[in-house]
Amino acid sequence: MAYAYLKRQLGVDAQAVALGKPNEETAFVLDYFGVQAPPVVKSAQAEGAKQVILTDHNEFQQSIADIRDVEVVEVVDHHRVANFETANPLYMRLEPVGSASSIVYRLYKENGVAIPKKIAGLMLSGLISDTLLLKSPTTHASDPAVAEDLAKIAGVDLQEYGLAMLKAGTNLASKTAAELVDIDAKTFELNGNQVRVAQVNTVDIDEVLERQTEIEEAIKASQAANGYSDFVLMITDILNSNSEILALGNNTDKVEAAFNFKLENNHAFLVGAVSRKKQVVPQLTESFNG
Amino acid sequence: MAYAYLKRQLGVDAQAVALGKPNEETAFVLDYFGVQAPPVVKSAQAEGAKQVILTDHNEFQQSIADIRDVEVVEVVDHHRVANFETANPLYMRLEPVGSASSIVYRLYKENGVAIPKKIAGLMLSGLISDTLLLKSPTTHASDPAVAEDLAKIAGVDLQEYGLAMLKAGTNLASKTAAELVDIDAKTFELNGNQVRVAQVNTVDIDEVLERQTEIEEAIKASQAANGYSDFVLMITDILNSNSEILALGNNTDKVEAAFNFKLENNHAFLVGAVSRKKQVVPQLTESFNG
Repeated sequence: MAYAYLKRQLGVDAQAVALGKPNEETAFVLDYFGVQAPPVVKSAQAEGAKQVILTDHNEFQQSIADIRDVEVVEVVDHHRVANFETANPLYMRLEPVGSASSIVYRLYKENGVAIPKKIAGLMLSGLISDTLLLKSPTTHASDPAVAEDLAKIAGVDLQEYGLAMLKAGTNLASKTAAELVDIDAKTFELNGNQVRVAQVNTVDIDEVLERQTEIEEAIKASQAANGYSDFVLMITDILNSNSEILALGNNTDKVEAAFNFKLENNHAFLVGAVSRKKQVVPQLTESFNG
Repeated sequence: MAYAYLKRQLGVDAQAVALGKPNEETAFVLDYFGVQAPPVVKSAQAEGAKQVILTDHNEFQQSIADIRDVEVVEVVDHHRVANFETANPLYMRLEPVGSASSIVYRLYKENGVAIPKKIAGLMLSGLISDTLLLKSPTTHASDPAVAEDLAKIAGVDLQEYGLAMLKAGTNLASKTAAELVDIDAKTFELNGNQVRVAQVNTVDIDEVLERQTEIEEAIKASQAANGYSDFVLMITDILNSNSEILALGNNTDKVEAAFNFKLENNHAFLVGAVSRKKQVVPQLTESFNG
């Protein structure tokens, strides 16, 4: 939404769309700043779009269904690059920073466009979510200053707002197991395997593990329906910055090798791990390719 | 070389290397500005490098042999993206402009680093080469101002220097046919086919076609040695901005469909075409995938 607003200020007919409905954390953010969720779309062409800009992702299997049938003219992202290709040159701005919001923030500055208060709130929330309030190892040295400036523009106290927002995302009790394993899940193609890596945030790992039986049923149903060879669920304690890893699938030996631990009853503790991107996916990639 | 110099000014231990020896155009440039050619390397690891920055390309089959065994930490490029992936997030700066030099020029400006005279000459030469002195359709609206500024810093007259440089690259008489088809050649994987697309610049297309027999022999030898399914040679008239296309291989029907022409005696005229990137590769990609 922030980048679409910037592009419109620069004269481009850009419209923000979403690939799914807001989770509880995002719903909290939208409600806090009084912003409507962007429309959820399934096909770019059905919306009349021949060109798309990808933000915060680049892998085609994470994108809109007809991504290969439209032209990707820009990418603004902070993830690794994979399963991505274009027929033509494009604008691509990737930085290994905490959040795509940090890059969009710099693009506002470079283009001399003022950041509206609500947009600042949205960008700040993206940065807080991605970095767990600047505590994740994915946090870049330049991110805290970005967060401070955005908090100032948005008119919020960074710590107070950040904790409230993160806690809003940990209300798992109201979710079915099927919803829980899909709150924040991405598929990675690792050496020919479709590996689903999901993450839920909590303030009490044990409370989530009490639901292990139904969660495993939901995971198996998701695997059967979508052809995932493996499903890795990170249950992340946002207060103490650790994760419990629950893994099911054909290659749990590779998952164990990736993290040098032994799964017991399908799960194991991963101390200090909060970042899927930096502390889970690279390790899985190396292990699956090894 | 220009980006390596910039990175060193920013405190990074960067060294420019080349994947091949300078062609005659490049040799003219290096001689003109009194700069030594960067060392030609075959393996990054053999040079003790665990991390690499790719400039002016991203496709792995166009890169150093052991590209998959080292970490790509940055890419500065103006080509389409394909056959490229990383395990980790990286810095990627791609713009659909005339030359990677134009992007490096902006990075100097953004970082407040002064461009030395010789470096300006090298960057200007890259821009002139890529855009055929700003006449190719790949030329971006922002490129002429970049060229003017670089010419000023380098102390050359843009038109006079540019034409002399381009003409230096058209001296094909001294080249064997095997050298000629390899002066500026890139391999593209199109729908499972290894397609070699080479380009030579000339001021007289007929003069090159007089050597058709030996050129075809060289192409067939290159195909046999490297497993190219197809070989497309652009013979580009830099004065009138047209190309003759010479094509051999398994899919000449796809080449003909790409350009909506009929090859006669293996070649055909492509009016107004001077850019491999914009006027040849996308058309081949679409035709091979169709």
